[in-house]
Amino acid sequence: MDEAIFTMHRGGKISVNPTVDVSDAVALAMAYTPGVAKVCTAIADNPELAADYTWVSNTVAVVSDGTAVLGLGDIGPAAAMPVMEGKSLLFKRFANVDAVPICLATTDPEKIIETVVALAPSFGGINLEDISAPRCFEIEDRLRALLDIPVFHDDQHGTAIVTLAALRNAAKVAGKALGDLRAVVAGAGASGIAVTKMLLAAGIGDIAVSDSKGLIYKGRDGLNPVKAALAERTNRAGLQGSTESALAGADVFIGLSSSTVAEEAVAAMAPSAIVFALSNPDPEVHPDVAGRHALVTATGRSDFPNQINNSLAFPGIFRGALDVRATDITERMKLAAAEAIAALVGADAAPGYVIPSQFDERVAPAVAEAVSQAARADGVARR
Amino acid sequence: MDEAIFTMHRGGKISVNPTVDVSDAVALAMAYTPGVAKVCTAIADNPELAADYTWVSNTVAVVSDGTAVLGLGDIGPAAAMPVMEGKSLLFKRFANVDAVPICLATTDPEKIIETVVALAPSFGGINLEDISAPRCFEIEDRLRALLDIPVFHDDQHGTAIVTLAALRNAAKVAGKALGDLRAVVAGAGASGIAVTKMLLAAGIGDIAVSDSKGLIYKGRDGLNPVKAALAERTNRAGLQGSTESALAGADVFIGLSSSTVAEEAVAAMAPSAIVFALSNPDPEVHPDVAGRHALVTATGRSDFPNQINNSLAFPGIFRGALDVRATDITERMKLAAAEAIAALVGADAAPGYVIPSQFDERVAPAVAEAVSQAARADGVARR
Repeated sequence: MDEAIFTMHRGGKISVNPTVDVSDAVALAMAYTPGVAKVCTAIADNPELAADYTWVSNTVAVVSDGTAVLGLGDIGPAAAMPVMEGKSLLFKRFANVDAVPICLATTDPEKIIETVVALAPSFGGINLEDISAPRCFEIEDRLRALLDIPVFHDDQHGTAIVTLAALRNAAKVAGKALGDLRAVVAGAGASGIAVTKMLLAAGIGDIAVSDSKGLIYKGRDGLNPVKAALAERTNRAGLQGSTESALAGADVFIGLSSSTVAEEAVAAMAPSAIVFALSNPDPEVHPDVAGRHALVTATGRSDFPNQINNSLAFPGIFRGALDVRATDITERMKLAAAEAIAALVGADAAPGYVIPSQFDERVAPAVAEAVSQAARADGVARR
Repeated sequence: MDEAIFTMHRGGKISVNPTVDVSDAVALAMAYTPGVAKVCTAIADNPELAADYTWVSNTVAVVSDGTAVLGLGDIGPAAAMPVMEGKSLLFKRFANVDAVPICLATTDPEKIIETVVALAPSFGGINLEDISAPRCFEIEDRLRALLDIPVFHDDQHGTAIVTLAALRNAAKVAGKALGDLRAVVAGAGASGIAVTKMLLAAGIGDIAVSDSKGLIYKGRDGLNPVKAALAERTNRAGLQGSTESALAGADVFIGLSSSTVAEEAVAAMAPSAIVFALSNPDPEVHPDVAGRHALVTATGRSDFPNQINNSLAFPGIFRGALDVRATDITERMKLAAAEAIAALVGADAAPGYVIPSQFDERVAPAVAEAVSQAARADGVARR
């Protein structure tokens, strides 16, 4: 298996290819000098034509500094490249987006921001990837304010969107309303924070979030500003202690950490419990174990039912944003994406089917359409 | 014609495509999570493996700030993109290099340098393009010093290499030795300066260079440092005045300006004169006019014999540099490229054939091989 993986990755997984034929002098003189000068002049006179006569409006830069790659952590830009290439591959495969992997030789937020601003005329959107928290929050916020193209940190929002989609269907299967759910989120990194914010925006009942020091509550010592703000909006009961202790009577567990959860803690959850153990490659609790007690179990793994994977979201989200030349990706666009994914499961929702397959060809077009519509509704569409 | 050009450029001229198939869950799990983690870990442990298991070692960033695009000047990054896409297209078509166009939102040399340094882990080489003089000299010099991958300003060196190749064959046709030639170069921008330096390195007899104020001579008022240095090494006779006045008795004219040269000036050149009128799309003197007096006439145009075009050089140069994972592109590599291009014409050299066709499929492989060998000879090859 390992050898097959390395063989597959040899030489990389993407290429740049011509889309026009230049096999004779006439064609070459049209594609390049002197013909290309006409196109350049037209764009110089009317910059909006760049979207029509260059590839920019169909491109996304997949930008990483290699500080939070998969479960591997800070492995640097060179070692992050196989993931970014994989992302580019999926962008094309699922949504016909031309994505270019960019791994940066800096981890300084100011330099990352400056670099992306300098690159921006070359791309129709920026997918930030595998940048560690809390730096990722500031980088994304500032780039969104500085640029007039969509900026989207996939580890945050892609995970949040797909998690919300799955949770909508899981709650339906469990016969519970979203507003009645009490959830526990393990992990307060980029994805844990974003999932929590999105579930709050979607109207979940209550959430307690834990980090490596245990549950986050108002007034806990040493909280960084992001966690302190979260403490204000979560954990209404003021629970303290371990993740597992908070699971007693909880409806939902969402694991976005590298921690583990014991079987007894799952057993102590409310009836018809929902367990999303999303750590890769090792879920916080094995799905077979969780399945003994929970009604719905989901993981990030492709070898069990209910795989929660960002690839259900990011291709369609950028497709939808690029299609209308959106200037931003708003909360409404993200919520619309989650609803579109959830709706594809629809009446077929069952304990083993709360989220579509990664290979469900309906997903990216449905997400794109929902995102385009939401962009128009929010006034961020340029066409 | 114009409509056909715009139709060809609609949506851009390149795309990013997968090179591996991920149409089932097993393949996807190998290309992306969780399988990709094995490849990332291997590279984190041994960074040299990045060249084997990512696309980086076959990629070039085509970087421009849009300040000196074709004959159009400072038209900005958005309007420069069609040219950079064209360049990427030719990189693939002629040398199977994956090239990514990057047009920058800054013209500040410091910011351009910082941006390219930040991007460098993502690319196997940097092709600087259409950056105005004299900024281009400092940007290239500093990036060459900072980075361990090839950095090559094509407007300078690509033009110089192809010009030298054509001049070698033209001199042979004229029965003159390179060391006996007296040349006049019109234009002291990036390409004029680079051509002059390269002809000096190749042992040409003497060169007088002119800019918009006339011939450059030692002691002329207001020369910038680059031109002042050039004045020390050129124009041994200390000629002053116009380009045309210097042509009297000269063996070679090389036009890299937007100026014009009158028929009488060409008529006053030495017997068996060589005229390279390289301005695009309008040569300094029409080839039909030059042909009445000169033995060899070349232009940048594809509709006349002897088209001098950078596309004969840059694809093979980067192919050769990438093949041996060169850390730099040295003078020896550039001279070797020029000799390889000239040698393909060989014994067939004639007034109407001093340079191969852009579609001569022998060119890029021959250049690549010569460049790889020269890289090894100079100790800049990593394999």
